[in-house]
This record gives sequence, C-alpha cells and structure tokens, in this order.
Amino acid sequence: MIDIAYLGPVGTYAESAGIAYLKWLAENQQKQGQLKPYPSIAQSIHALAENRVQLAVIPVENSVQGSVTMTHDTLWELEGLYIQHGLILPIRHQLLSFAEKVETITTVYSHPQALGQCRKWLENHLPSVTQVATNSTTEALQYLKDDPTAGAISSPRASELYHVPIVAQNINDHPDNCTKFWVVGLDKSSQGDYVSLAFSLPANVPGALVKPLGIFAEKNINLARIESRPMKRLLGEYVFFIDLEGNAKDQLVADALVELSQYTEVLKFLGCYKMLSIE
Amino acid sequence: MIDIAYLGPVGTYAESAGIAYLKWLAENQQKQGQLKPYPSIAQSIHALAENRVQLAVIPVENSVQGSVTMTHDTLWELEGLYIQHGLILPIRHQLLSFAEKVETITTVYSHPQALGQCRKWLENHLPSVTQVATNSTTEALQYLKDDPTAGAISSPRASELYHVPIVAQNINDHPDNCTKFWVVGLDKSSQGDYVSLAFSLPANVPGALVKPLGIFAEKNINLARIESRPMKRLLGEYVFFIDLEGNAKDQLVADALVELSQYTEVLKFLGCYKMLSIE
Repeated sequence: MIDIAYLGPVGTYAESAGIAYLKWLAENQQKQGQLKPYPSIAQSIHALAENRVQLAVIPVENSVQGSVTMTHDTLWELEGLYIQHGLILPIRHQLLSFAEKVETITTVYSHPQALGQCRKWLENHLPSVTQVATNSTTEALQYLKDDPTAGAISSPRASELYHVPIVAQNINDHPDNCTKFWVVGLDKSSQGDYVSLAFSLPANVPGALVKPLGIFAEKNINLARIESRPMKRLLGEYVFFIDLEGNAKDQLVADALVELSQYTEVLKFLGCYKMLSIE
Repeated sequence: MIDIAYLGPVGTYAESAGIAYLKWLAENQQKQGQLKPYPSIAQSIHALAENRVQLAVIPVENSVQGSVTMTHDTLWELEGLYIQHGLILPIRHQLLSFAEKVETITTVYSHPQALGQCRKWLENHLPSVTQVATNSTTEALQYLKDDPTAGAISSPRASELYHVPIVAQNINDHPDNCTKFWVVGLDKSSQGDYVSLAFSLPANVPGALVKPLGIFAEKNINLARIESRPMKRLLGEYVFFIDLEGNAKDQLVADALVELSQYTEVLKFLGCYKMLSIE
C-alpha cells in the first residue's frame, strides 16, 4: 500500500488529483495506494521528506494564477525529492454557501490561489466582500455552518461531501482554468519526456543568467517553462526552475546539464518524468 | 503640480515609496507633486492610463515574496505606459494591535504579500491565527478599533498615523526584506541603464522560448530579471517580463529588440530607466 500525501482535507483539488493518480497506479502499475491529507502544501512535502509517506501530490502552476510559490520554495529547501509524474486537472470553482441569495454574502473564504482565480467574478458580483485566506479550499467550508453571510470557493466534490449548496456555478474568470500537479517521490526517476531543474547563480557575476540560458538555446533544447523565485537574501538573487523537453539520458540533455553545472551555484535535478492525461 | 497615484490609504509602503520619489523630484528636477491614494494596485495603474494622474508608484517585486503578480498582469493589459524610474524601499513589518498581549490575537489582517513575508513568524508565534487578506497593509487597520483580538501587519508610519500600538516589532522573516517599485508614466523614457520588456510567444511553436533568450546570450546582454506570468488562456502559454542591463539606444540593445520582435507574438517596450537609491 502506497501512502500519498496531499493538501487536505477531502474535497480539495489536490485530493481530486490524488484520486486520479490512484486510478492510474491501479490500472497501469497494478499498485494500490491511499491518500493522506496534510494541512498545508509545505507539510505534505515535508511528510514525504521525512518518510512518513511514499509520494506527495502537489500543485505546481495554475493557468491563470501562475506558479504556486509555496511548492517551489519548499522543493528548493529540501533534498532528495524527485518528480515521478506530472498531471493536469481542470478547475471549476463553485461558490458554496447557506445564503439564500449571492448578494447577502459579505465574506468569502478560500485558498489564496482560488480567490485569485475568481478575482474578476468577485469584483463584478460581490465588490465589497471581505476575502479571507484559508489553507485549502475545503478548510474554507468550516466558516459557513452558522453564518449565512459567509461563502466559500471550492470544488463541486466539496459541495457534495460537506452538504453545502452551490449558490453560483463555475465562477472561475477563465473557462479553461486548469492546474498542473507533480507527483513527487524519493526515486530518482528517469523515464519520460520532461526534465525539471532548479538552480541558483553565483552572486555579483555579470551575465550570470544569460550563460545558462544560452546553453539550452545553443543546443536547441526547448524550455517548456522558466520560473524565477527570490533567494530571499538580497533583491536580484533568484532561484530558477526550468522544465525542459527531453529525457535525462539524451546525450544533448546530459551535456547541457554538465555545462550548466559550470555556471550555477547550486544545481538540483528535480526529476525526469511523463505527463499523464487524466479526464 | 504632478499627481502621483499609489496604493493607499496613507501609511502603506507604496506611500513611503511615493514620499521618497516626491523628495527626489523636488531636489533633482525642481518639480512639485502630490500623492493620490487608490484602493488597489490595478486601480492606481488604471488612473494613470485614463489620465487622471501623471504618474503611478507601483510595487514590482519583493526580495522574499517575489513578483507582485497584479502589477505585471495590469501592465500587460494596458497600453502606452512606461517606467520612468525604479526605486528600492526597505520593508520593516510591525504587528499593530490594541491587544494587551500578542498571544490573545486570533485574527491577523494584511495585504497578502505582507502576510507571506511574515509567514514563519506567524507560524511560530500565532500558529492558529486566522489570516485575512486586505487590499493594502493600511486597510487592515480598520478592523482593529473595536476588537482587541485583531492584529494588522503594517508599517511603523501606519502605527504613528493611525495611533495603533506596535505589539511586535520587525516581524518580517528576512531582515533584508525590501521591495522594488516602478514609477510609471506616459513619457516613453529613454534615460538610464535598465530596459524592461514584456513579450508573448506564438502558441505551439517548438523552441519558441529558447530563441528569444538566446538573442541576449549571444550579445552578452545581462538579464537582471526574468519573470513569467500565465497568458490566462492555456497552461504553458506565458508572458515574459525581462529587465536587461543597458540603454535602449545602445546599438547592441537596439539590435536585440529588432531581432526579438521576429520571434514574439506581442512585444512591449516598458521603458528605459534609472534605479534611484533612497534612504
């Protein structure tokens, strides 16, 4: 039995991604697993690093809000974690509440990413509402019970699980809203057509960023994504996260990694993996 | 008299940046100006785009939290706005409250960026506190008056202006916390040693990202920052924001921009400007 950590409790989008992955594991690898909820993304990753679970399903980026900063910052801090698979989940936000009418809602609770993904809807329909950040879209539901002026942005599944009516359907600002998740584990994975890296650059070296990026350009290795996060020391020092198209054993990719390591301060191989399509 | 929009009300860090810029304008260009508060970053930029002010002072990135997504997304949406100057402000967050003791605070209000910059402090000192997102660090203060269980993360100046005691000093997780601001206006600026660009790439073109980055590598033009934001259409489509070192009239930079325009879908020149040092 494989234990898989996720940002809980039940009803979050991370749980939906976890359920899809369990199904894939059963069908393709004849393996059984179970999902274990954690109160934050960071804690679900730490559970894996401390061997309390074998895998963690973590959100990486959303098509509207962009990168999930907590995921990137935590992966950079920890050692020995590798991406096993990527998967993409469509996101359909619902406004859940015991209010009779949407207009009587004065406070909306949700995860900051979900609030951001419904920003324009909230501006148009509830312009003076107070927005309260919660640790997950499901945690937001706990505030609804005794307060008909409260609403929560969460999934259709959460509405069913927690028996809270949907007062406004599909309120995400962009209809194609979806979130990419990584399944992270301890095996140094090497199968697939994506390679993810993270690296920092030596401070105060002119041209430090241009050289590593030039390596990929020179070898015509396609970058699917480049994301920068602050080093949290001085302004202007970054950690870069790169997803490139290729397999880690391709000669071109292997050469690029060796070359890259000459310019970086710290270079982390985050994994070589396949993107799974889920319905 | 130059009207300058900022994320208000008085007491925000954006106001502090605005005050520093007013001083610089008076000393270096013998110009007088006044600050005009707006309830959100987006609204302060829109005020400029609609000619209701002549300049806007907007936060761009923080050394801990990273890029201010609202600023980038709004600049991408609007036309004809150019960076006139950059300036960097040290950030020293204070916990303001009428509570007798820090431990009795159950809710902390602040701008999401400020909450993020004090995440570890909050986890350590107030692990079960409810975090409520407000439009500005100053707006958070309105919740404190009749509620001694409420706290707000804001600036030392806000404590003085609004007569709210500081119950915990300098609670930012990183002592070197600072925020970079851009002063944006309608003049196509061309003086200074930084050039900022934003561009999108044609969809489904393999290698689309590698080629534009290769241009800078080839010409040895240093990139001070590269930031990606989702296009908000499909996952994997990004808008890139680049700060490069050089002047827009340098032959090398001018050539790079022409070359770049051959690979981009939309290319926006955001300005050529000087970074001002402020105390």
